[in-house]
Amino acid sequence: MSGIVTLMSDFGEQDVYVAVMKGVIAGINPHLTVVDLTHAIPPQDINSGQFQLGNAAPYFPTGTVHVAVIDPGVGSQRRAVAIACECGILVGPDNGLFSQLCDRYPPTAAVELTNPAYWRVQSPSATFHGRDIFAPVGAHLASGVPLAQVGTPIHLRKLVRHSFPAVRREENRLIGTIQTCDRFGNCISTISEQDVQGYDWEAIVNGQSLRRGYTYSDVCWGEPLALIGSHGWVELAVNGGNARDRLQLQCDDKVEIRLLDSPRDSAQSDPPSPLSTSL
Amino acid sequence: MSGIVTLMSDFGEQDVYVAVMKGVIAGINPHLTVVDLTHAIPPQDINSGQFQLGNAAPYFPTGTVHVAVIDPGVGSQRRAVAIACECGILVGPDNGLFSQLCDRYPPTAAVELTNPAYWRVQSPSATFHGRDIFAPVGAHLASGVPLAQVGTPIHLRKLVRHSFPAVRREENRLIGTIQTCDRFGNCISTISEQDVQGYDWEAIVNGQSLRRGYTYSDVCWGEPLALIGSHGWVELAVNGGNARDRLQLQCDDKVEIRLLDSPRDSAQSDPPSPLSTSL
Amino acid sequence: MSGIVTLMSDFGEQDVYVAVMKGVIAGINPHLTVVDLTHAIPPQDINSGQFQLGNAAPYFPTGTVHVAVIDPGVGSQRRAVAIACECGILVGPDNGLFSQLCDRYPPTAAVELTNPAYWRVQSPSATFHGRDIFAPVGAHLASGVPLAQVGTPIHLRKLVRHSFPAVRREENRLIGTIQTCDRFGNCISTISEQDVQGYDWEAIVNGQSLRRGYTYSDVCWGEPLALIGSHGWVELAVNGGNARDRLQLQCDDKVEIRLLDSPRDSAQSDPPSPLSTSL
Repeated sequence: MSGIVTLMSDFGEQDVYVAVMKGVIAGINPHLTVVDLTHAIPPQDINSGQFQLGNAAPYFPTGTVHVAVIDPGVGSQRRAVAIACECGILVGPDNGLFSQLCDRYPPTAAVELTNPAYWRVQSPSATFHGRDIFAPVGAHLASGVPLAQVGTPIHLRKLVRHSFPAVRREENRLIGTIQTCDRFGNCISTISEQDVQGYDWEAIVNGQSLRRGYTYSDVCWGEPLALIGSHGWVELAVNGGNARDRLQLQCDDKVEIRLLDSPRDSAQSDPPSPLSTSL
Repeated sequence: MSGIVTLMSDFGEQDVYVAVMKGVIAGINPHLTVVDLTHAIPPQDINSGQFQLGNAAPYFPTGTVHVAVIDPGVGSQRRAVAIACECGILVGPDNGLFSQLCDRYPPTAAVELTNPAYWRVQSPSATFHGRDIFAPVGAHLASGVPLAQVGTPIHLRKLVRHSFPAVRREENRLIGTIQTCDRFGNCISTISEQDVQGYDWEAIVNGQSLRRGYTYSDVCWGEPLALIGSHGWVELAVNGGNARDRLQLQCDDKVEIRLLDSPRDSAQSDPPSPLSTSL
Repeated sequence: MSGIVTLMSDFGEQDVYVAVMKGVIAGINPHLTVVDLTHAIPPQDINSGQFQLGNAAPYFPTGTVHVAVIDPGVGSQRRAVAIACECGILVGPDNGLFSQLCDRYPPTAAVELTNPAYWRVQSPSATFHGRDIFAPVGAHLASGVPLAQVGTPIHLRKLVRHSFPAVRREENRLIGTIQTCDRFGNCISTISEQDVQGYDWEAIVNGQSLRRGYTYSDVCWGEPLALIGSHGWVELAVNGGNARDRLQLQCDDKVEIRLLDSPRDSAQSDPPSPLSTSL
């Protein structure tokens, strides 16, 4: 156990829902370290939650417990689960929120949270399982309670998955989409570093061709470029500016990558290890 | 002592006022756990502060110190106080900010913060008592300093109270108002779970009748309903949507509850303990 | 070492960049206390970052490590540095971000972060040195690693400085500008408490004269005034209102102070120590 619990939700910062979860955790074990991933996920947006969780969890120590609550089906028949994978223990609703993480770090065990001994109260609220089930179970798991005690085993293939939109390959082209835009207006595609590995390439969005760079300042201030972003995805950016506004892009817009001759065979090879997204 | 200090304010997240308070606390006792309730209270909005504090503090361990700074009268004659109640120790301006909490958890002792030995500096700023008085006093109290040492006793009936707007009862009707709308657009009324206990009921807002449910998914996606929210108040919501926008509601709007025949006498009784807001 | 690391950035709260830095820190030393200063600095706004850091860092215990990432030149030739000063250890890009702090707390030593043994990975990302260099180096420094080990010495006069706009003095007038507006709409000028010390004074902005007060409630609700704010700068405010909106002010607007006869020689002297910004 790492003694660390992370929290992610669509609760925002204006209300005290997040604080209430922290109060419940502190009541169970005040020595845990609690870290917010983000609480600004758009309401009920499971895909956005998947992306953010998938890009944050791998940077935490082994054994970290990740409690995530984007839960439009709270109080309905959707299951509450805890999933063990190489990336830690994931606690939340079984609605696909953990798919992106489970694609990369296959689960080794999962349980449905059926043991009320680890809930805040025997009869949880029908609208706030974050407070009454997920936070307390997460706190107990981070304190050393074994996964098997908090519920009953689930077959791993029965976990709900939101399949990640596949990247299409056509000869020398890759077709993906924008999966999110960050605060800076950087537009992050569904095309990964692995997809383009070994190639030189350029990106095309909205009929505009963008040269590939390694960092923002590889182009003049105010100019657009494409690069492998820090999370390991092909990203469209503007040096010192906002690519979403400048290139008129939004989520789910098409991104095309043209693969050029492999630079491994040419004189203009990549600089030695300019990037690393290994964890 | 729980060793926990919570912070609530109208300082927002864009400035470093909150961080400065945390720096002061860390300088007094770096081993305290500091938890933010919220800092997004609208500027000077004591009523909003009351609501958020009243709904968060009860979830923290016994002995937690709650420092709250919504303080339009800073530097004037308004008193700085610390109040002991079953829900912890409350530290902040004596301007009614603690009324909702004190209504439910009657104070057992209160002092005016007159002892500069526990302030950051002997001559505090006239505009930032959060930094110079409330945060340091809170840190000392959470570290075990007795309440009686930080100031002089106040008669409990002399504490400033903002009386909570009473719910009106007329035969089979309850008339309350919207007290807040959360990030999801859920509209939380002043009518409590206790007010409707033992009855079946429906809500009427803006001439529209809303059926009572137990959780959001009791109605179709996009449909409105009324339910007891997680904090124990009658709440107007839309499954997967935003009730504030959909029903055109705002703070202080009227909410009417029609009490129907008590379900205890009928065949359609409540499911066993579908809700629990007990702490 | 205080065991405390603060984080400041322009990363905002919607993405997980900040959380990723916290994950990296927890992986190096889970016992460190991590405090957010603010992450709402406008993208790439080094001046705003300077101001916020300069006004927060002095309130933290001796030996605190301040990691600040407003880094438009990431991946370019700009240096990564750690600077020791009376106010703690400052870690981030050498782009002027630490100037305001270094003006007041002169550096005693500085190194360029050239030792990859203290980075997250040997080949850091070209776009996220916060994660790969600044956060891990900060965590190691806060855990007791000596400054000299994390890099090679830099001559202190070679550190990049963004010179702070000087206040102009003309006989009985001081001319400065608005350097920031806070969440409340208080407009904070570049004129310091020291600049007006020993004088009575009034402020003039947009052709309007504002009387000097000591706290907001020195004028009627809704009325404007000028005062020394809690950080020690001349500030324009409205009691219970928003000076930025009311007085139509924005960053870089001119602020004039008229120095009146020194109150030390007159009957209407200052109240004893009404203000203290000493740390």
